[in-house]
Amino acid sequence: MQGDKAPSPDQLGYVGGRLDRADHIRTNPDLLAQTFASPDALLLVMDGLEPVTADGHLLMQPLDPNALLEEHALLGLDEARRPVFARLIVDAKEDVGFASRGRAIVTELPAHEVALYGGARSLIHWHDRHSFCAVCGSRTAPEKAGWARRCGSCNSEHFPRVDPVVIMLAEHRGRVLVGRQHSWPPRLYSALAGFIEPGETIEEAVAREIREEAGVAVHSVRYVMSQPWPFPSSLMIACIAQAEDGALALDETEIEHALWVDAAGVRAALADEADAPFIAPPALAVARHLLKHWLHGQVAQTRPSA
Amino acid sequence: MQGDKAPSPDQLGYVGGRLDRADHIRTNPDLLAQTFASPDALLLVMDGLEPVTADGHLLMQPLDPNALLEEHALLGLDEARRPVFARLIVDAKEDVGFASRGRAIVTELPAHEVALYGGARSLIHWHDRHSFCAVCGSRTAPEKAGWARRCGSCNSEHFPRVDPVVIMLAEHRGRVLVGRQHSWPPRLYSALAGFIEPGETIEEAVAREIREEAGVAVHSVRYVMSQPWPFPSSLMIACIAQAEDGALALDETEIEHALWVDAAGVRAALADEADAPFIAPPALAVARHLLKHWLHGQVAQTRPSA
Repeated sequence: MQGDKAPSPDQLGYVGGRLDRADHIRTNPDLLAQTFASPDALLLVMDGLEPVTADGHLLMQPLDPNALLEEHALLGLDEARRPVFARLIVDAKEDVGFASRGRAIVTELPAHEVALYGGARSLIHWHDRHSFCAVCGSRTAPEKAGWARRCGSCNSEHFPRVDPVVIMLAEHRGRVLVGRQHSWPPRLYSALAGFIEPGETIEEAVAREIREEAGVAVHSVRYVMSQPWPFPSSLMIACIAQAEDGALALDETEIEHALWVDAAGVRAALADEADAPFIAPPALAVARHLLKHWLHGQVAQTRPSA
Repeated sequence: MQGDKAPSPDQLGYVGGRLDRADHIRTNPDLLAQTFASPDALLLVMDGLEPVTADGHLLMQPLDPNALLEEHALLGLDEARRPVFARLIVDAKEDVGFASRGRAIVTELPAHEVALYGGARSLIHWHDRHSFCAVCGSRTAPEKAGWARRCGSCNSEHFPRVDPVVIMLAEHRGRVLVGRQHSWPPRLYSALAGFIEPGETIEEAVAREIREEAGVAVHSVRYVMSQPWPFPSSLMIACIAQAEDGALALDETEIEHALWVDAAGVRAALADEADAPFIAPPALAVARHLLKHWLHGQVAQTRPSA
């Protein structure tokens, strides 16, 4: 495809989509039918929830002329204005974890294709888990080109979920807090994270999660960046907060261990040095980019006296 | 209550909650039962989804000794460490719109009580709409002190929804873009807004929504602030973006009219002046605070040459 850069090992996953989501087609049944019948229409081929690739790209095929519109979602229009559809009726396998193809493609494919896959995975997973109406228990069916479902009985409309998650570093006297869960590979540490609850701002959720998981009070929460995370459909909201104190009181059901790490330690971990104080998360995860962002700020602060 | 400030007419709604959400109690059935049986336990009295107030505060009553734990959610512990519960079985009335008590209390109650109500409203509404399992259609029941529901048949666990929404000003040559929907009161204009979709960053959603609704391309999206919006359960993420051009192409199904407004116009609207170019949204809405934030930045920029 034109304009593709070679995949970068430092690429944040699932961001940078280039599809035009074409909302005006979703909501216009005639235009949608015409788009579905277009000879240019493409199907994003999936293996359950996993991507299928060929020659360093997502596998796309012409849409089968016998395909049924009601079994497909319009993902959008590509840069050549070709409509791209995904099939909603899948035999969705369970998430196969860190070894999944959905994670491996981040370093294999152009970023915008990884983003296209991520959005498709979240949407397909949502449909797979929403055949029934949560209000009345009856069958639901897709509508709006796969961007909603409607109940055949009580007429309730349901929309795809996006679950906002805060992921954050607490900072204290030139060090940041990283923690690890019991199930993780040895020495891997990352930013703390948790779902935003009803009734909270981003900033309030950051403060609550750091207090719950590490016993640390924070203030001055600063937003850094965001990332859609398609396992199954989170919006990662990455922040840095100022800790009032360095003393830790871990919630050991959530966190196995946590560390305060200085700039030299973060730099060594990001350089994958063998004697680094921890192993940093991979580049597909926003936590690595949050650590880089913080380190960059530290270098900028210390440069005048260096 | 101690430490309450008088309600301010400029207060942003539903932020500033002071409850300790006490996650460690939610997930510990024995501790939860003990908390529910505590003589200090309080019930937040509601009228369906609407708040009930008395003497300038939310009405709280001692929990009925015959109340059933499985019909209640633990909202958290107040500043005196008293547990506050909400009843989940409600005859939820439909939202009564701009005139609802849930909106009016923002200028009547201390901010932290408005936040407590907002979180409770979102949670109760979610339970009211999730009696059935979206995966298999069977009955679900609350668990984790009302912070989840589980299916009695397929055992799927479901969590309260929080729907992230971007709300934003496009900026171009010292002016910002405000728009109005067909159904709004005359002359009311606000920031454009829309739900974040699966597969998008905050910044990508801001760019898509402004392009869809106003035909304007933007870059350099900057996060400003966030707000939980309990109608029924959004997370408003307020941003400012730089427009590449001032030409508008409105989506007239969504937007009736849109205006580029300069600092003098925004200042007049925020001062509720009769000859202002538009009527600004009320202080309970984050859009008004976003306009104030932008105006403050304009004043800061122009002060040296003023």
